[in-house]
This record gives sequence, structure tokens and C-alpha cells, in this order.
Amino acid sequence: MSYAFTLLGDDAGSAARRGRLQTLHGVIETPTFMPVGTLGTVKGVTPAQLKALGAQVILGNTYHLYLRPGMEVVEALGGLHRMAGWDRPILTDSGGFQVFSLRDRSTIRESGVTFSSHLDGSRHVLTPESAIAIQETLGSDIMMVFDECPPADASAQRVRAAMERTTRWAKRCLEARTRDDNALFGIVQGGVDPQLREVSARAITEIGFDGYALGGLSVGEGRYDMWRSVRHAAPLLPTGSPRYLMGVGTPEDLLFSVGHGIDMFDCVLPTRNARNARVFTFAGDLNLRNAAFRLDDRPISDTCDCYTCTNFSRGYLRHLHKAKELLFSTLTSIHNLGFLIAMMGRLRSAIEDGTFVELRRDLLAKRGCLELLDQVEAEAPR
Amino acid sequence: MSYAFTLLGDDAGSAARRGRLQTLHGVIETPTFMPVGTLGTVKGVTPAQLKALGAQVILGNTYHLYLRPGMEVVEALGGLHRMAGWDRPILTDSGGFQVFSLRDRSTIRESGVTFSSHLDGSRHVLTPESAIAIQETLGSDIMMVFDECPPADASAQRVRAAMERTTRWAKRCLEARTRDDNALFGIVQGGVDPQLREVSARAITEIGFDGYALGGLSVGEGRYDMWRSVRHAAPLLPTGSPRYLMGVGTPEDLLFSVGHGIDMFDCVLPTRNARNARVFTFAGDLNLRNAAFRLDDRPISDTCDCYTCTNFSRGYLRHLHKAKELLFSTLTSIHNLGFLIAMMGRLRSAIEDGTFVELRRDLLAKRGCLELLDQVEAEAPR
Repeated sequence: MSYAFTLLGDDAGSAARRGRLQTLHGVIETPTFMPVGTLGTVKGVTPAQLKALGAQVILGNTYHLYLRPGMEVVEALGGLHRMAGWDRPILTDSGGFQVFSLRDRSTIRESGVTFSSHLDGSRHVLTPESAIAIQETLGSDIMMVFDECPPADASAQRVRAAMERTTRWAKRCLEARTRDDNALFGIVQGGVDPQLREVSARAITEIGFDGYALGGLSVGEGRYDMWRSVRHAAPLLPTGSPRYLMGVGTPEDLLFSVGHGIDMFDCVLPTRNARNARVFTFAGDLNLRNAAFRLDDRPISDTCDCYTCTNFSRGYLRHLHKAKELLFSTLTSIHNLGFLIAMMGRLRSAIEDGTFVELRRDLLAKRGCLELLDQVEAEAPR
Repeated sequence: MSYAFTLLGDDAGSAARRGRLQTLHGVIETPTFMPVGTLGTVKGVTPAQLKALGAQVILGNTYHLYLRPGMEVVEALGGLHRMAGWDRPILTDSGGFQVFSLRDRSTIRESGVTFSSHLDGSRHVLTPESAIAIQETLGSDIMMVFDECPPADASAQRVRAAMERTTRWAKRCLEARTRDDNALFGIVQGGVDPQLREVSARAITEIGFDGYALGGLSVGEGRYDMWRSVRHAAPLLPTGSPRYLMGVGTPEDLLFSVGHGIDMFDCVLPTRNARNARVFTFAGDLNLRNAAFRLDDRPISDTCDCYTCTNFSRGYLRHLHKAKELLFSTLTSIHNLGFLIAMMGRLRSAIEDGTFVELRRDLLAKRGCLELLDQVEAEAPR
């Protein structure tokens, strides 16, 4: 077994923890943020640039890679690591989230999901078994079970049915697995309903996985409900295993959730926002399209030491955006990813030093979220 | 005077030479190829990636930078070097070539050229004096005189008139110059007419510049005429000064011209072709769109040691192109630039070792241009 999780220490003033994930492709220090490389590339950023930012692990998307370039190509090119030129760990999702996002293009049965490709309308089937087979072909270090992820506006009945199916499918995923040198994580569903989350967490942890994810959050329920759900659901997961909050990636959501014992995060938001000229700073996000930055020779953030902030000004970046230069997306993506990765590094150090609670309050205050933190933390347990 | 050119050695079997240009921002070993950074960025490639490829100097375009972001922005952001995060030498063109490319959007008078912007139609004037002032504001290490560059299909009369005006404007550029710590290069015009080239070379060298360029080639005259013109015109330029063949950038054109004593080249072709999926190899260019590369796990070139070739396969690059991923243009641009830059390094070593003639024949044979070489070299002097 080449996979192991070690809990290195707990924070005294919160539920935050320092951990270490051992995988075939190396170590991941937690808590960590994982850049998303949907199609075998983190958009606009080379593997060398990702490494320079300190990225420890990237995410690949089963649904997208299965459709394009397809498994025949991935196999011929030596698996996802070799194909993408990335020799550090890779986590893959199961395709569940994307397939269910297709809504009217997909049909759910107990056996699996039939869907038509968003690229050419061709028909495909994903099952718990094929989702695992695809992830094994990709060569994933951390695989995810094939889950049913209902939208935020789904009825209570639908949310419960999805949660129950997720449990049945989780068992089939575990049985379908043929490798024992990588990890398979279970996914707890249940929307923002505390009771459903409890039922789901009990069922999934009873089956037993190498790690546990909270799915179905950050799907439109709003920050207040999301934070309440994280606070309630994170402690339902075993302390000895890594906890992964799927699809979450704003600085404030990471700060909040680390304090409640979440170890892993992923999100397309940093790179998508970057391409749309929105960049993170601790004084609030900037929109680099803004004419106010025309003559601004300051970096995006003067406390950030990413390649972009140490070499380029806001005025230059605005010029690149206006001129539709390719370099714009690369430089802003480097910044947004570097910002989150560096922040996670600071959080890890702060957990070790016992200064986490203070740092989290300080950073959440800068991001204008201290009031919400205090409100959620003051609520009675659900 | 912070600018100097030293001739380090001549090739025994050809007119090739090894030289060294000293500028305020560092040394340029010649012969050299200069990547083009039209708007203050070599499209899709970071300054750090350019340095890793061994790029010694990049080119900036006066016309484009004057219009966008404009001189107010460049000044506020500390000049072109600081704005673009590039601390090595920069050569700037004068805007002449671009302004004359506008054709029906420009009016030429003896005083200068009135033109309407390709961006918004606004009216502007470029004169020899303003072209120098703009280049001084940019902070160029090597400035070019404002020349008139007629199209390849211009009448003999038009070519002669342009050549004569280029001479008059060259004098005005020299007088307009206020700095003595950078270089100003003259430009020899005259199309493919040997006599006009001789008149122009005599007039421009009589005025006296820090270096000399051949302008008005690679503008549609075809390779045969271009090679003949280079062979004839290069020896008309003083041996003690650097010689720059403007706008030329195929591997075969560089190989030919270095053998006739050209020291410097620039061209958008490597990066433009790269974005269009055409990549250089010594077995001929590849079009990465080709379905034949779908499962191909070989690098673009197995003798190339650029970042792209040491990390990524043709099959992966084809996938990135099909998926319209940003990384595609970055990786192919790195390869095409790295290919030319590495080739120039080999040529420099070969000149030093006395193996240049052999290497040139070998590489031109691989590129299918040996016959043309022998044909042009066998012709009687013009």
C-alpha cells in the first residue's frame, strides 16, 4: 500500500489539523489547495510554473478526459501523469458532478448514467464500475467514488434519494477497484440538510474509504448555508482520514473550512476568474479591466511573491488584457493560484505554531468576512 | 558610450562571423535570432521562459506600442524593459514598416507619415524625429531609423524614391537622437535591385551608424530573390559593424544568411506558426493538427532540448490544440523559438570550430534547400 495519511498535529484553538498524504507520486502536506487541470492542463499554466508556485497535487476530470482526448489516447501517451508532464500526485473526480450538471442530457438509472456528450452529442454511459476503470487508466493517485450530486434547488426527496444512491454506488466502486497502491475516497452527500448529512456520513464511513469528501456544496446554496454545513458535517468524518471539500476555492471559504478540519480543496474559480481579469488580494479582489489601473505600476499584491507580482505591474497586466494577449491569462492564473497556495502554506505554518485562529481572523477581516464567521461560529450545534 | 560591437572571428569557408554586441542591458552573442514582442510581450511566452530558451534580446514594435498602451503608460510603468519584465537588451523598430503596411490608411510626405490607427481610426503622425523620441522613451538598446519600406510589387521609380527618402530621413534620425548610451542602426533599402542596394548602402554607410540593417526583404519577393539580394547586399555593409536582416525567420533563411555575414535576425513567424500548429523540425515542419499525431508519444523533435520537447508528446499537443487550450500556443511557441535559438547557438559554435560550412550544408539538406543554396552560390556576382 503506497498510500497513507498521517495526522501531524491539531490546532489548539480550532478543529484545524496538519496532515501528510503519502502517494505513489509523492507527498502532499495538508491542508492544501489543488489546482484544477480539467483536460490534462491547468489552463494557461505549465507544470514547471505550477511547481514553482508550490502546487503539490492537481486535479483531473474523468468526464472531460474520457470524452477528450479519450482513453485510447491517454493510454497511448502513457497515462495522465506522463501525458500532461506532471510527476506529482493527481486526484481525479469520478465524472459524477459533470454528468449530473448536464441535466436534460442525462438519464439516471440504478445501473449508471446515460448521457450525451456536450461536444458532439454522442451517447455514453458512466457507471460506478466504469468511473473507477477510467480513473485507474488515467493513473490517478486519489480516485473518487461515482456519486450522484443533486442541484441546490432539488427537493428534499430528490436529495435523499441521491444520497442513498451515492451510498449504493460507493460500495460498487470499492468492489470495482483493482489497484491497491492508490487511494479511493468516499463522498458524503445530503445537501444542506444536517440530518441527511449525518445519515450519509454514517453510511459512507461504515463502508470505509481511504479518505472522505463533502460533495454537493458550493452549488448555489450561498456562503452562509455552505459554512453552516461544513461546520456541521466535517466533524462527522473520521479524524484519522483526510477530509476533502469538493469544488470550493475562494480564500474566505478555505480559511473558514480549514478551521473546521478540512484538509483538501479544489476549484476552477482561481483560474477562471484570472482569465476574466479578477485577481485575489487580501484587500479584496481587483478587476484588472478597471481604467484606474492604467498607470498603476504596483504589483497586484505587494505582499505576494508569485512570479507575476515580483515582475509585473497592474498597468502592464491591464494593457495585456486590452490587447487580448495570451500572456494575460497565464500571469493572472499564476497569481490567483500562487495566492491560494501561499495562503495554505501560511495556514499550515500557523497550525504548527499555534497562531492559526489569530491568522484566520486577521485574513477573514481583510476579506470582509469576520462578521459571517462570528455569526456561524456562535450558532448552537445543529 | 555603453554600446560596442566586437568581431570575434571569421569563418574560413564562408562570410560568416562571430561577434559580440555590448549594450546597456547586457551582451548579445552573434549571429543571433531575436524573438518579436510586438506589444511588450512575446506572445504566449513569459520572460522567464524566454531566458530559459537562451533568448538574448527581444524586439519591440514602435508603431504598436505607440498606439497601445501608448507612451504615457510606458513612461508611467518605467519604460519598456521594466513594464515587460525583461532586463536583457531590447531592439525596437522605427514604426516605418508597419505604417507603410497600412497603405491606403497612410499618407507619406517629406516631413513624415500621417496614418490612421488600425485600432480605432484615430489620426497620428510619425516623423523621423518622433520615431526616435518614441524609441528613446521606450528605452531601447538598439534603435532603428525611420525608413520607407515599399512593397515587393512597387515600381522601380517608387523603390528608388523610397530609398532616397530613407537616406534623408536617416540623417534626420541621427540628428534627433539625444542619448549616446544606446545604438542607432541605419537601414539599407533598394528592394531586389542590386544597383539601388549599392547606392543605398553607400549613402547610409557614409552617414555612419552603429550598425546596418537590410530592410525591404522577405516582403513577398520569394526565397530565390531574397537569397540573391542578401548575397549581394551583405558585403556592401561595413565589416566592423553588426548586420541585421530585418523580418527574416525561417531556419533555411537564417542558415543561408549567416553564411553571408548577417549577424542579427527577427521574425514573428516562429510564434505565429506555433499558434497555428506549425512547428519546426529538421525533418521538415509538422502540422500538429494532423490526425496522424493522435497517438504519437514522441516529442516534436527528438534532438531538441526545449521545455516542450523534453516534457510533452505530439499526441498531447494535438489534444491541447483540439481542446483550444491556452497551453498549446505557449508550448509550441517555446519550441519554435527554442529551435531557432538553439540552431543559432550551434552556428556560433560551428563558426568558432571551423565546421560552419559543413553544418550549414547538412542542415539545409535536411530542410530540402541544398539545391537552392548551390544554385544561388554558383551564380556570377551581380
